[in-house]
Amino acid sequence: MKAWQFNGTNKPLELNEVPEPHAGPGQVVVEVKAAGVCHSDVTALDDAGWMPLFHELPRTMGHENAGVIAEVGDGMDEWHVGDRVGLAPVMSDGDALGYGKWDGGFAPKLVATADNLVRLPDEVAFDLGAMATDAGLTAYHAIMAVGGAKAGMKVGVIGLGGLGYIGARCAALAGAEVYGAEINPETRKLADEIGLAGVADSIDAFKDKGLQLIVDYAGFGTTTSAAIETLAEFGTFVQVGMGRLEATINTYPLIINQLTLKGSKSGTREDLAGIYELMKTGKLNPPMNLITHADIPGAIDKLRAGGVIGRFIAMYE
Amino acid sequence: MKAWQFNGTNKPLELNEVPEPHAGPGQVVVEVKAAGVCHSDVTALDDAGWMPLFHELPRTMGHENAGVIAEVGDGMDEWHVGDRVGLAPVMSDGDALGYGKWDGGFAPKLVATADNLVRLPDEVAFDLGAMATDAGLTAYHAIMAVGGAKAGMKVGVIGLGGLGYIGARCAALAGAEVYGAEINPETRKLADEIGLAGVADSIDAFKDKGLQLIVDYAGFGTTTSAAIETLAEFGTFVQVGMGRLEATINTYPLIINQLTLKGSKSGTREDLAGIYELMKTGKLNPPMNLITHADIPGAIDKLRAGGVIGRFIAMYE
Repeated sequence: MKAWQFNGTNKPLELNEVPEPHAGPGQVVVEVKAAGVCHSDVTALDDAGWMPLFHELPRTMGHENAGVIAEVGDGMDEWHVGDRVGLAPVMSDGDALGYGKWDGGFAPKLVATADNLVRLPDEVAFDLGAMATDAGLTAYHAIMAVGGAKAGMKVGVIGLGGLGYIGARCAALAGAEVYGAEINPETRKLADEIGLAGVADSIDAFKDKGLQLIVDYAGFGTTTSAAIETLAEFGTFVQVGMGRLEATINTYPLIINQLTLKGSKSGTREDLAGIYELMKTGKLNPPMNLITHADIPGAIDKLRAGGVIGRFIAMYE
Repeated sequence: MKAWQFNGTNKPLELNEVPEPHAGPGQVVVEVKAAGVCHSDVTALDDAGWMPLFHELPRTMGHENAGVIAEVGDGMDEWHVGDRVGLAPVMSDGDALGYGKWDGGFAPKLVATADNLVRLPDEVAFDLGAMATDAGLTAYHAIMAVGGAKAGMKVGVIGLGGLGYIGARCAALAGAEVYGAEINPETRKLADEIGLAGVADSIDAFKDKGLQLIVDYAGFGTTTSAAIETLAEFGTFVQVGMGRLEATINTYPLIINQLTLKGSKSGTREDLAGIYELMKTGKLNPPMNLITHADIPGAIDKLRAGGVIGRFIAMYE
């Protein structure tokens, strides 16, 4: 089978012929139906700092995958050929699909383990199912698992592109009253689609709302400090975005309002199952750009150039 | 009876003759045995910003009190004349003893309610009992209730004077492995008395210790940022000190190590009971300067001048 493979920093992906994988004990083979292309792939290709993550080269990339089980190894009796699955990317050994010693979904088949497997409901298409495994998972984990967004809660979301769209929409679907902050006027137009109660260019426009939770998917430092000035007493701030890795904060509201600040990254299989439950309603449809397997290197070039709206998802049928 | 009273910003305390209080429904009268003098008293006297806290003037100050119940009002059957008590300062109406509409302990008697009353064990002297109600309570709440310090936990404490001494000692007595950071070499000499596993001028000297909790009783901004760079994965930072109300932090370790930052202020009656349990062991003896009722204005002048080591406690017998 043909696989797009990483073979070292500053080299383009190589299209190599590789053997079809088989399922060892504790493994399944998944026939990939949809594979997302992520900005992390660009960074891994371009930044020599990521090289230590790759135990051996070449390595098939692609960590955002959904598909159908094609082969079941010993000890995996819970799973059957034909099961629809989404794959949480992080392995319990600390690696992830498409990195380390695990090939990813930029090939028609891959090996997965119990660390990855989450049932993909029939109502959720493979493209959405793949998108949910990284961007969706990270966005959902921050606002729902770490932030504890729920019905009736007053929630602020900073940054409405990419992860922020998904996070804000998840909270709105869960019944929270969600206010958004976004510097791009074009992106602010998504407010109704997301179901926001209000939108502005900075979260401190909602100081009078008594926000109990603010999640910052942008992370430009100023966004962190504005959130701390805006939260209600005992409020929680969750930092996800890494736009600029330095924030100057006022510790007075932190102390006097007894706030909690938390960092959040990635997510769990439980989170992925949770986001699939929301997707079953048909009401969580973030922007996507559907492409083919052949288009993957081109999508990486476009992500590198910037300005892309919507996740690139390669469809394999 | 004679009471030291606040009568407006930038005026010295006035020694006024006031009527002895009586216990209304839901109240007791406490005969004050020990009353602490706090840096907050200096701020209230000097900073016009505190004036709105005082509903009417003059007001007897003193929010750190321990004593004996002298009179019991209706509906307070749980309490009896002669009971030894420490008084948590904050009322459920948001005021505190010695502020707002409640007279404090810079007089021989005061009125307290169920919001304040905590049993003072026979083993704990009145001076320690008073000291525990504010400095002790705030220090204990931050490290034990908010920070969750416990046996076997690796804990960092920033600032070892005043609150930091108490916080570090509480954690050490609870069985935690405690490391201290303190810029004053004289204060660093308290390390053995506190029971520290190590002491340095900055908390990042203990980066290799895998600290799970760091409590910052100094709060100079640089202390906050050093703590965030030092904590282990999933670690917790608690901000108490307000030395400088701005901190520039690196959000990368916050996110990647999935840290939690919390602000903490004051404490609860449960915290005060908790600190009395530790004091019963005889092993929590922070520095104190015992004075008389007549000395209270002089103690305030010394606190204003700075450099005082040990809490001023006025003893009334």
